[in-house]
Amino acid sequence: MLDQRPEDIRRITCIGAGPIGGGWAAHFLAQGYQVTSYLHDESEHQALTRLLETAWLSLKKIGLAEGASLDKFTWTTDLAKATQEAEFIQESIPEVLALKQELYRKLGEIVDPRVVIASSTSGLSMTDIQAKCSTPERTVIAHPFNPPYLLPLVEMIGGEKTSPKTVEWTEQFYRVAGKEPLVMKKEIPGFIATRLQEAIWREALHMVANGEATVEQIDQAVVNGPGPRWALMGPCEIFHVGGGEGGMANCLDQFGPALKLPWTRLVAPELTPELRKAMIDGCIEMTKGKDFASLSKKMNDGLVEIAKIKRANKHE
Amino acid sequence: MLDQRPEDIRRITCIGAGPIGGGWAAHFLAQGYQVTSYLHDESEHQALTRLLETAWLSLKKIGLAEGASLDKFTWTTDLAKATQEAEFIQESIPEVLALKQELYRKLGEIVDPRVVIASSTSGLSMTDIQAKCSTPERTVIAHPFNPPYLLPLVEMIGGEKTSPKTVEWTEQFYRVAGKEPLVMKKEIPGFIATRLQEAIWREALHMVANGEATVEQIDQAVVNGPGPRWALMGPCEIFHVGGGEGGMANCLDQFGPALKLPWTRLVAPELTPELRKAMIDGCIEMTKGKDFASLSKKMNDGLVEIAKIKRANKHE
Repeated sequence: MLDQRPEDIRRITCIGAGPIGGGWAAHFLAQGYQVTSYLHDESEHQALTRLLETAWLSLKKIGLAEGASLDKFTWTTDLAKATQEAEFIQESIPEVLALKQELYRKLGEIVDPRVVIASSTSGLSMTDIQAKCSTPERTVIAHPFNPPYLLPLVEMIGGEKTSPKTVEWTEQFYRVAGKEPLVMKKEIPGFIATRLQEAIWREALHMVANGEATVEQIDQAVVNGPGPRWALMGPCEIFHVGGGEGGMANCLDQFGPALKLPWTRLVAPELTPELRKAMIDGCIEMTKGKDFASLSKKMNDGLVEIAKIKRANKHE
Repeated sequence: MLDQRPEDIRRITCIGAGPIGGGWAAHFLAQGYQVTSYLHDESEHQALTRLLETAWLSLKKIGLAEGASLDKFTWTTDLAKATQEAEFIQESIPEVLALKQELYRKLGEIVDPRVVIASSTSGLSMTDIQAKCSTPERTVIAHPFNPPYLLPLVEMIGGEKTSPKTVEWTEQFYRVAGKEPLVMKKEIPGFIATRLQEAIWREALHMVANGEATVEQIDQAVVNGPGPRWALMGPCEIFHVGGGEGGMANCLDQFGPALKLPWTRLVAPELTPELRKAMIDGCIEMTKGKDFASLSKKMNDGLVEIAKIKRANKHE
């Protein structure tokens, strides 16, 4: 609840029991929370149990928080019962606006207004979702990446009626709860990660449609090429390191002209002095001014570990 | 040489001593080959030695081939001497067409025509590079990803005058030499991996230019979201797994409409029945018909290992 410290939250309710809702339940259980899942229908129980058991095998290998246990899990198909003791609610029902609006209307009435309700939506806006909710200030988008118990990203943004306090508190709560929240500056369709992922996906579809590459070639190109780097560093830091001692500045000055080349069907923005500066300053700030040698070592050490994982998998 | 079995090659010459040429030298040395580097200027020697020593630390951790040793490395600034005993040549000089054409003209005259000359070019076409070479049949593009000693991808394609036998032999040679060659069906600007990488990069530049995300947010979104998956599976297989039991077919039917949404500035191709079929068939073929449970386990097991690496790095 908004008047608690994020560190003091113990009881979480997950609404929805699909791969995302169930994945959130697994994550929170592994962090030691008491978790209640609301199921739309009793028949979903079996698949959810299987998901939790599978996830638990992975989570044990990574390391469970103290006190974490599957015994702290309960479920119900009664929405009032599911939410009555909740200190935080993560909603992951299907991406249908009318369904979400109706759910938030109900939750707005039955749930203590100090309890944050976070939506896992990947495509709807919170302004729309909260439209019929009588207590919209405590609602916020918190979009995870699948599976939520293995990938830490949570993209966050409020709707028009969301209070800034809710966004701030929820960001802190996710950090305490072992996630990596990212509060967006603007609401853009697809948010940030999905937009980047979708750019690759569309370029891949174009290549297959034009007979330029097969499905398998596209995947081999990623997995044996840029893929392992992206597990360790984002596209900006990779080019910052790729620029050598001169960093991002060197990279932009040397490869800037490539933006005019038809290397993907996506037309590049003009590399204005402002954009050049934003990219360079952003990289220096992000890497806390670390030099080429140490960034390059971080990348190579990570790639060595990933190469070892891949070699082991190959022999399985 | 083309009349040897790829397994019997022992002596390799790397032309060029920058990060790519030096990286290739490190890779071949770790695989146990005798390697000679041609340096444009003696002054490059120091940086090359440093590169080899740094790379060797990583390569030792992954595991060296039997007999691999830095003692098998020599260098010279004499092109004839550098190539006279070569059984395979990897060229990685700067991306300037006139320079490459002049080099291939010389090599065409002084190097035994049975020796394959592979170019690391990322942007030029072999038809152009081989234009002044008197023995162009044995020249081929073989574009690595940086660093070539840690990332296995080699994108290959011949020029108009390249013989099919050269492409076939060189593909086999790279497999023997520990790389993952990918012979392209068509020559497209940026090849396959760079096009996919460039699509992400341009979307990222647009976001920064429009104030939609900071440099750091873009990188966090990738590293905490889709990035770790891309180290393990390409974008097609990821969606094939993401589709659950129904695989890619389910994914396309459920998320196909998202292609109409402005989730990236790259306009998607029409999802025709032919493209739908190509994506589905391609995924089934690539994964050898493995079921959802085993593909999903492969992904999750890999993500667990990557999560462990990242947790260890965080505490450093």
